[in-house]
Amino acid sequence: MASMLLSRQLTCCLQQNSRLLVFGHRYISQAAAKIDVDFDYDGPLMKTEVPGPRSRELMKKLNGIQNAEAVHFFCNYEESRGNYLVDVDGNRMLDLYSQISSIPIGYSHPSLIKLLQQPQNLSAFINRPALGILPPENFTEKLKESLLSVAPKGLSQVVTMSCGSCSNENAFKAIFMWYRNKERGHNSVTKEELESCMINQPPGCPDYAMLSFMGGFHGRTLGCLATTHSKAIHKLDIPSLDWPIAPFPRLKYPLEDFVKENQQEEARCLEEVEDLIVKYRKKKKIVAGIIVEPIQSEGGDNHASDDFFRKLRDIARKHGCAFLVDEVQTGGGCTGKFWAHEHWGLDDPADVVTFSKKMMTGGFFHKEEFRPNAPYRIFNTWLGDPSKNLMLAEVIKVIKTEDLLNNATHAGKALLTGLLDLQARYPHLISRVRGRGTFCSFDTPNDATRNKLITIARNKGVVLGGCGDRSIRFRPTLIFKDHHAHLFLNIFSDILANFK
Amino acid sequence: MASMLLSRQLTCCLQQNSRLLVFGHRYISQAAAKIDVDFDYDGPLMKTEVPGPRSRELMKKLNGIQNAEAVHFFCNYEESRGNYLVDVDGNRMLDLYSQISSIPIGYSHPSLIKLLQQPQNLSAFINRPALGILPPENFTEKLKESLLSVAPKGLSQVVTMSCGSCSNENAFKAIFMWYRNKERGHNSVTKEELESCMINQPPGCPDYAMLSFMGGFHGRTLGCLATTHSKAIHKLDIPSLDWPIAPFPRLKYPLEDFVKENQQEEARCLEEVEDLIVKYRKKKKIVAGIIVEPIQSEGGDNHASDDFFRKLRDIARKHGCAFLVDEVQTGGGCTGKFWAHEHWGLDDPADVVTFSKKMMTGGFFHKEEFRPNAPYRIFNTWLGDPSKNLMLAEVIKVIKTEDLLNNATHAGKALLTGLLDLQARYPHLISRVRGRGTFCSFDTPNDATRNKLITIARNKGVVLGGCGDRSIRFRPTLIFKDHHAHLFLNIFSDILANFK
Repeated sequence: MASMLLSRQLTCCLQQNSRLLVFGHRYISQAAAKIDVDFDYDGPLMKTEVPGPRSRELMKKLNGIQNAEAVHFFCNYEESRGNYLVDVDGNRMLDLYSQISSIPIGYSHPSLIKLLQQPQNLSAFINRPALGILPPENFTEKLKESLLSVAPKGLSQVVTMSCGSCSNENAFKAIFMWYRNKERGHNSVTKEELESCMINQPPGCPDYAMLSFMGGFHGRTLGCLATTHSKAIHKLDIPSLDWPIAPFPRLKYPLEDFVKENQQEEARCLEEVEDLIVKYRKKKKIVAGIIVEPIQSEGGDNHASDDFFRKLRDIARKHGCAFLVDEVQTGGGCTGKFWAHEHWGLDDPADVVTFSKKMMTGGFFHKEEFRPNAPYRIFNTWLGDPSKNLMLAEVIKVIKTEDLLNNATHAGKALLTGLLDLQARYPHLISRVRGRGTFCSFDTPNDATRNKLITIARNKGVVLGGCGDRSIRFRPTLIFKDHHAHLFLNIFSDILANFK
Repeated sequence: MASMLLSRQLTCCLQQNSRLLVFGHRYISQAAAKIDVDFDYDGPLMKTEVPGPRSRELMKKLNGIQNAEAVHFFCNYEESRGNYLVDVDGNRMLDLYSQISSIPIGYSHPSLIKLLQQPQNLSAFINRPALGILPPENFTEKLKESLLSVAPKGLSQVVTMSCGSCSNENAFKAIFMWYRNKERGHNSVTKEELESCMINQPPGCPDYAMLSFMGGFHGRTLGCLATTHSKAIHKLDIPSLDWPIAPFPRLKYPLEDFVKENQQEEARCLEEVEDLIVKYRKKKKIVAGIIVEPIQSEGGDNHASDDFFRKLRDIARKHGCAFLVDEVQTGGGCTGKFWAHEHWGLDDPADVVTFSKKMMTGGFFHKEEFRPNAPYRIFNTWLGDPSKNLMLAEVIKVIKTEDLLNNATHAGKALLTGLLDLQARYPHLISRVRGRGTFCSFDTPNDATRNKLITIARNKGVVLGGCGDRSIRFRPTLIFKDHHAHLFLNIFSDILANFK
């Protein structure tokens, strides 16, 4: 099957225009690229429709104990390797979604297998401590080797958490505490504050808010959900908080062709941000912080210019609000920099940056002034998991050794160039192609077409993910190479050519 | 050192009254008991004050990157075994706190080491999937072997989460959805609901509430925190929700000696619960559910009678509220039953039961009627971690094979009997001794005395935990045996005798 795909690809390349011949040229470098990913498979291998009979049988069983309607198929992770996800029916698929963007260096990476086989590492997996009170000897060292070695500029402090939602929830709390201390101007707390907070009332529980953007996604716990505005299904029936919501720019792509229109759209949104801060303060609801994703992901891969974010940062500073950048989905290298917000070139760093997914552990970086002024204020039983820190240290070593940030830039360029070409050829199916590194996406005409394309691609051996109401997003691992991009583009080109 | 302790203990037993001779008798069975815990150490071994010089050095380093003031000491988990926690200065301590009650079967359990060494299990640790969309082949099977094999009666459904807070947050959401569907009476949603929920407003985000109890602890994310009322430091400066808070009974111990007074106190609290539900409904804030811990843990180990909880369950049903039992700290067997609420003998089971800590994964059980009516409503990227399910299946096998629930009852009785004896001998230091299984506690005269006792005990080789404003709580592992109870009691008896 793989060799069939290869010959089909070469034939395809030879038959097509000069732009695609560039693909052919790049494809020839596959052998060299593959040295870096020697545990990878050489192509998809499909045996059944997906989900296949075994997956369907297992879905039925799982559905007996929980709503399993979101399950795509069941996986054989033991057999999954590199960029390829193998399912329980023996189908092997090129995975461009990587578990909702959460697998950093591919499946079954030899470095991680080796790490797990070393006897001295066993303890980290079976003796999970309460990190806030009884950390293991190597805790600081592993944080330095992993998270702190890639800390965004100016953020010297880091706290680990178990997932993305907990990371944002605790980042909000750190911001609220910081804001209140700033308002107080001193460290002493009144009796009234201590008593009123116990019954959820001000002044102990002040009427503070986080400003968020329409289309943003920051998690699903109640605090996070008050800042999430991507899909109704996430929010319906759940009580929320009256926090301000600003419009996020709706830009035209490619960005370089619509500079003026996009600037106007961004200016409109920024003005609204300032208006909301003032309006909410007037009604005694203080905006303590602004939360934003560098690229709105769940909400439909909505980009904004670097200039927009620099101006947003300025607005936050001007109004005394903390500036929180949610890098849960964008962080970890897929945009070509370790953190997507590093593209912006901020003079004054973000105040707080949250992460999870590819970082294997949740958590957040922050400036020193956001440090809680007492123990147990940002705290829970586990505060993350040292076994994840251990794996992350290894993952970051691989990212550095194998120059995977540059790889993301390079492979992302191959992917984006190919998508632009497909857009030119199939404008009725593909529009608004956009991306940074491998963090690419495009729009389809509607939800039904999008879902149909994802299903067909899956049956041809490619796992894709949707986002927003009609977008397809690319979230490959960091070991996704140019040749994987070309492999995908050829398969997808065939799909588009035959799409009815 | 261990043999010194042993001989001191025997001498001590021989010198004391018949009640303590029972300890001596039980102690003789230590050899038999130790067969079950053959990877355990035979006693504490202290080399330095705790925290020792190495711990202090590491605390200073950690404090450079996060507030490390809550750290007790740094641990050598590789050397920690069974009930004994070893620190980085080579001190070996009998651990009666077990990482805030989160280590089920002791440190470095051979079954878990073996599990990690089996090549077929490696994948679960290094290939963490998005469980809601791409579960591993053995997902349902492992849930059946682990969580479902100990599911509370009547609760056929289970969802996994990454931590205790996420478990409660998502349980709240399941309850809110259930309540709203009940109100609707049908499955269709209005356009107004879909639109208003996107901007955090009713009717899409209805004004629903969870009723909680003063002194309760249910986590620290914003939704959970609105139901947490244990300590001001947890809540100060964080905006909250106007949700009803009922008084939790403040009982006299031993419960059997104060039946009438305690009944009156419980009746007062139950009446207040009903009043609050009615009062909040009048102001259009609907109490959709009631959340309660079987024993308020962080809040000071506050017990209530089985009758109180049966009546509370009845009130929930009468008013159409969901009844959510938070077993994050009480669950997993330490009270002598797998779930503490199984002691109550409810006719109608709880609607939702949350767990985490000793269960290694977070999550919640629920009745079928609380199943979300669509996919992606209770969802996040990871939805727990299959590596934790794998370990939990092994832990539950050990709990069953080694009859550890009965062990908790038995060892708990030895501990409680000893504490009652110490209370009789040192009433100025120990009061309100209480417990179920090994989930025991007592009060000290004040915060300062409590903290001093904990520090002295630690330097004598025993790790204890505090809770509430002046209580000491016992949270040993499930392999804590009678002889460990006697070992502790002897050490603590000496401490009390010499306390100034």
